[in-house]
Amino acid sequence: MKFAIQRDYLVRSVQDVMKAVTSRTTIPILTGIKIITTEKGVTLTGSDSDISIESLIPVEEDGKSVVDIHQQGGVVLQAKFFSEIVKKLPSETIEIEVVNSFQTVIRSGKAEFKLNGLDPEEYPHLPQIEEENVFKIPTDLLKTMIRQTFFAVSTSETRPILTGVNWRVEDGKLICTATDSHRLAMRTAAIESESTAHYNVVIPGKSLSELSKILDDSSEAVDIVITENQILFKTKHLLFFSRLLEGNYPDTTRLIPTDTKTELQLTTKDFLQSIDRASLLAREGRNNVVKLSTLESGIVEVSSNSPEIGNVIEQVQSGNIEGEDLKISFSAKYMMDALKALEGSEIHIQFTGAMRPFVIRPMHDDSILQLILPVRTY
Amino acid sequence: MKFAIQRDYLVRSVQDVMKAVTSRTTIPILTGIKIITTEKGVTLTGSDSDISIESLIPVEEDGKSVVDIHQQGGVVLQAKFFSEIVKKLPSETIEIEVVNSFQTVIRSGKAEFKLNGLDPEEYPHLPQIEEENVFKIPTDLLKTMIRQTFFAVSTSETRPILTGVNWRVEDGKLICTATDSHRLAMRTAAIESESTAHYNVVIPGKSLSELSKILDDSSEAVDIVITENQILFKTKHLLFFSRLLEGNYPDTTRLIPTDTKTELQLTTKDFLQSIDRASLLAREGRNNVVKLSTLESGIVEVSSNSPEIGNVIEQVQSGNIEGEDLKISFSAKYMMDALKALEGSEIHIQFTGAMRPFVIRPMHDDSILQLILPVRTY
Repeated sequence: MKFAIQRDYLVRSVQDVMKAVTSRTTIPILTGIKIITTEKGVTLTGSDSDISIESLIPVEEDGKSVVDIHQQGGVVLQAKFFSEIVKKLPSETIEIEVVNSFQTVIRSGKAEFKLNGLDPEEYPHLPQIEEENVFKIPTDLLKTMIRQTFFAVSTSETRPILTGVNWRVEDGKLICTATDSHRLAMRTAAIESESTAHYNVVIPGKSLSELSKILDDSSEAVDIVITENQILFKTKHLLFFSRLLEGNYPDTTRLIPTDTKTELQLTTKDFLQSIDRASLLAREGRNNVVKLSTLESGIVEVSSNSPEIGNVIEQVQSGNIEGEDLKISFSAKYMMDALKALEGSEIHIQFTGAMRPFVIRPMHDDSILQLILPVRTY
Repeated sequence: MKFAIQRDYLVRSVQDVMKAVTSRTTIPILTGIKIITTEKGVTLTGSDSDISIESLIPVEEDGKSVVDIHQQGGVVLQAKFFSEIVKKLPSETIEIEVVNSFQTVIRSGKAEFKLNGLDPEEYPHLPQIEEENVFKIPTDLLKTMIRQTFFAVSTSETRPILTGVNWRVEDGKLICTATDSHRLAMRTAAIESESTAHYNVVIPGKSLSELSKILDDSSEAVDIVITENQILFKTKHLLFFSRLLEGNYPDTTRLIPTDTKTELQLTTKDFLQSIDRASLLAREGRNNVVKLSTLESGIVEVSSNSPEIGNVIEQVQSGNIEGEDLKISFSAKYMMDALKALEGSEIHIQFTGAMRPFVIRPMHDDSILQLILPVRTY
């Protein structure tokens, strides 16, 4: 293998596939990046067996030559060193050549590295996915949907299925749901698909978070293919594979209350800041719990108390309070996470009593909801 | 105590004194910030007994009212909570009032915090320093001198005196020296002083690093007062006290070679980058050692070798090579630290053999030198 390549393209591509590489693997070759030349260009692959990322650096882009292949071939190089080296090379062009028994020479300017490489044939094969039933989502919408749900997955392995985000595809819609059993985030969006296939799968939270990091903010579509145990995200030069979690995701629809006893309208930013202040003292307590009470004249009182340190009390003006008076306690962290995930400057919160889950939604937007279970303190 | 204060001033001042506050103290009251009102304004104090910082927020600045004092007094508030609270208060004005048994009310907009406080009389007194023999250095020069020497102090407690930076004041000059016995950094500058007093003291590295963080980049003078066991840095609204290290600093002047067998001229940036690249593989080894050899036609070769991973070799053009041929090995980290500390785009390095310390200086500037001991590998 021998080729010359524009440094910027290689650096970007290496950064992308590095997202899948971990040093904590039981398969030594997976600490490496697989580099293969094809007619189309140079393909880099990184994998931790849960996530695999393949990035293609095309021979040419926008009429500009990017890769110049002198001899076909491949090698696996230690990801940790290779990624650091390419970042720091002095010249805009890098020449990479496998000399013998996979020893690889990397030349740029007057610097020359020799790295011991491995046989790419020994690198595990990526899952083979039949590209039927592709559906499409714009990249930026996909990133938003991940951001709005991912944070609510469970970080505990007691119920492994809850460490993933449930994706249901049905009737031209994608419904993403995450819950750690104390709060729940749900986001719905229309998808573009030629098939009527239904899916109900659970994607590891970590996979979605890594995917989100390597996608740009364009409105170009991402192709998504779901199989029995894998999901593939496909952009112009990138393939992102993730395994799916095994098991059935709990039916969360019955958790969402349908009736309302008290409803508040609030300005997202003001309410978020007051919860943030109240949580400054609450953090010391075991649960980071703040209290909310409705007062007269559309005033909501947010408070918390930490006997050893002190207390805080704050009044927030509500746009509208309807229904019964309410005193309720909840995790400040969950509330802040939920408010940050919502879009829109105004929200409404629907309560059905101090001990029942409550639902936060942006005004005039039913595509997203955040649900939080209160804490018993009153 | 009762006063109203502009939030921005309080936030800045709290940030400054927080630099001295640590949660790891055996004196519980030192986890707090002392707040005292005087005729001049509000004084905040933070201390970990090694470093003490006092910040004055003046009643008025630039003709603008900053503090409005309603009732004199003082209190000590938990630094961790107080600092977080003031940052997040909603309004530009903050009212602080001690109500009873040092319980303190903090009001801003519609938020009201009550914090349990302590008696300021129980807060340790700051050292009393007679302000004779003051000398002056511009703030930005002081920060530069700290940056250029501080990094070379020892991080090991085997010789505690080496964890500090030696400051000698003599003949209208300040000479700062730091060494961890493997490398040495020295910087000299003229000072402004009405006295002819000589000093030879050792300031804890940590104190200088914290001082550097709270000084701005102005050219206004810092007043410096040295006593037997304390040093005081004084700016317009800030007093920064540090204890001095006890013991005699080793005589480092005899370490610095006076003769030269090989001399190289190099472009700082190119040389730094080539060392950085060579160290990518060297880091895996035990010492992060790179090799330098002089070749013909003014070429310097930088290389390193890590048998399991690979090797790197790079040629750097020297502006001039004089004297004997040389092969020498040294720590890439020490060289990079030294090169980053030097000012100027061109440097010269003076060697007196492969096993003797060598000296790096900017071209045409004798106010700073960096010395490194080589590593035996050839």
